[in-house]
Amino acid sequence: MHSEFELITRYFTPDPPGAEDGVSLGVGDDCTLLVPTPGQRLAVSVDTSVAGVHFPEEAPAAAVGHRALAVSLSDLAAMGARARWCLMSLTLPASDDGPWLADFARGFHELCAATGTALVGGDVTRGSLSIGVTVMGEVPPEQALTRSGARPGDVLAVTGALGGGAGGLALWRRGERDAGHPLLKRYLHPLPRLEVGLALRGLAMAAIDISDGLLADLGHVLECSGVGAELTPETLPLAEGLSAALGEERALEAGLHGGDDYELLVALPPEHLDEARERLAALGLALTQVGRVSEAPGVRGVAVSGERGWQHFQGGGAP
Amino acid sequence: MHSEFELITRYFTPDPPGAEDGVSLGVGDDCTLLVPTPGQRLAVSVDTSVAGVHFPEEAPAAAVGHRALAVSLSDLAAMGARARWCLMSLTLPASDDGPWLADFARGFHELCAATGTALVGGDVTRGSLSIGVTVMGEVPPEQALTRSGARPGDVLAVTGALGGGAGGLALWRRGERDAGHPLLKRYLHPLPRLEVGLALRGLAMAAIDISDGLLADLGHVLECSGVGAELTPETLPLAEGLSAALGEERALEAGLHGGDDYELLVALPPEHLDEARERLAALGLALTQVGRVSEAPGVRGVAVSGERGWQHFQGGGAP
Repeated sequence: MHSEFELITRYFTPDPPGAEDGVSLGVGDDCTLLVPTPGQRLAVSVDTSVAGVHFPEEAPAAAVGHRALAVSLSDLAAMGARARWCLMSLTLPASDDGPWLADFARGFHELCAATGTALVGGDVTRGSLSIGVTVMGEVPPEQALTRSGARPGDVLAVTGALGGGAGGLALWRRGERDAGHPLLKRYLHPLPRLEVGLALRGLAMAAIDISDGLLADLGHVLECSGVGAELTPETLPLAEGLSAALGEERALEAGLHGGDDYELLVALPPEHLDEARERLAALGLALTQVGRVSEAPGVRGVAVSGERGWQHFQGGGAP
Repeated sequence: MHSEFELITRYFTPDPPGAEDGVSLGVGDDCTLLVPTPGQRLAVSVDTSVAGVHFPEEAPAAAVGHRALAVSLSDLAAMGARARWCLMSLTLPASDDGPWLADFARGFHELCAATGTALVGGDVTRGSLSIGVTVMGEVPPEQALTRSGARPGDVLAVTGALGGGAGGLALWRRGERDAGHPLLKRYLHPLPRLEVGLALRGLAMAAIDISDGLLADLGHVLECSGVGAELTPETLPLAEGLSAALGEERALEAGLHGGDDYELLVALPPEHLDEARERLAALGLALTQVGRVSEAPGVRGVAVSGERGWQHFQGGGAP
């Protein structure tokens, strides 16, 4: 159904991407032709968002469009890559009507515009609601922020505040529907930290985006880097209003285990911390030390129970 | 569920892609890092295959894996691009077990290996069975075979034989399950014409892959090129055994309207026809003239009825 996808791009992309976006042949042919920047690595990633699994079926359409792109862009941010292009695979129930699609497209395209990402292809098929988004970005070969660069002695720090995504989902499940509520907004409209990734090039040694929860994603960095960590949970920057909404214990748990925040966790040498904080302050964002990388494997400083208290959205069931 | 995807790549890719595949950082980080060839355009496309919509739910797992990649690679072929990389979004019902996944992965990876395409990323999520495949290829800027290059006087020609995909689907619906049956094989294991696309660089002026049926895809070329066509249906190269299986009238209809063949339709100046035929003969493939491009819009030579007799697979309902 290429034609339907062309309709989407035509009606909801005010300015189709062109040469200034590195697009030499746009949507409407068998492929799109892109012009990669010489000397850069092409960073690619794909994430699929399934209704009832990754977001509530009844989530606002604009939020569904925004989130589907945001979670993919967050991978580029964690790599220190500049966002350039994306492709969207939209699977829609036959019943979905124009207004839903218009809102969905608006949410998607507004984030495209805000991040300088050109939508350069995709398709629309019939089936249960699901959105796969492939993103492509660029990063100089030596400046990519991988998961494997953390070294003993590095500071572990997180951007912004944690637990807001999980808190927002908990509120949603309790029936909160005010899209202006800060925690709900946080869950429905997460912002990929692309500018942070760019700002930390040359300063951070490793980075990952926090999509599965701080501890889970820290685990990936530690495993890839062959190191351990000491955390200081008392320094965790929790989202404003989180404790009031969930209670203190549950708020801390959301900060440690809750997913859907899409902040960055970085490892950087102590001597880079001040400079990194200054660069992030210029972006209006805090960078908070939450621990240190250690030689000994494992994570110390938190009681990691066998049963994880936090669950992602998985269709039904209050947490 | 990155980890599950890593399992797939680990167990079913004997040799993970490396520097020789243009991969500088492989699966397992936030993004994969690729090394585009300097001076080439990056050709990208995505296609999603949904069970019950694009293929029968009970199709063999290896065929599902093969087809999902083949339909995307076919877009690169139609562009004259060399296949380089792909990403897979696999949405699986929770019930799907190891053997199904092993067969699926085998079908996918065998086509990767046969076409020199490196699987460089993806994700696995839970939901109704659906496979989105993003492909990336490369083509020199001036050699891309677009849909818009057809000129009056050009010869219209198709590769291989037509109607086999539709014929195979018709047999499947009648209960044929012998995967060795030529028409069934054609439907379940279509081969993207990547080598043809490369061979026709510099000779063809326009190309498209026949996924929706000859007339429908010809229509796209004519519209993009602002021209018309005269077809000679009596020269249509129908798949062997098609008339015997469907009857003559229905076989011709399958050749004109049946989808899922993934042959290429090309427009080329008459003086290039012999050279093009020779190059394709070297690949063991016929190139058959089926008409000419005309100045006058529209398609002459075939009775295009208002009701299209052919239906793609759309879940149930014999054609």
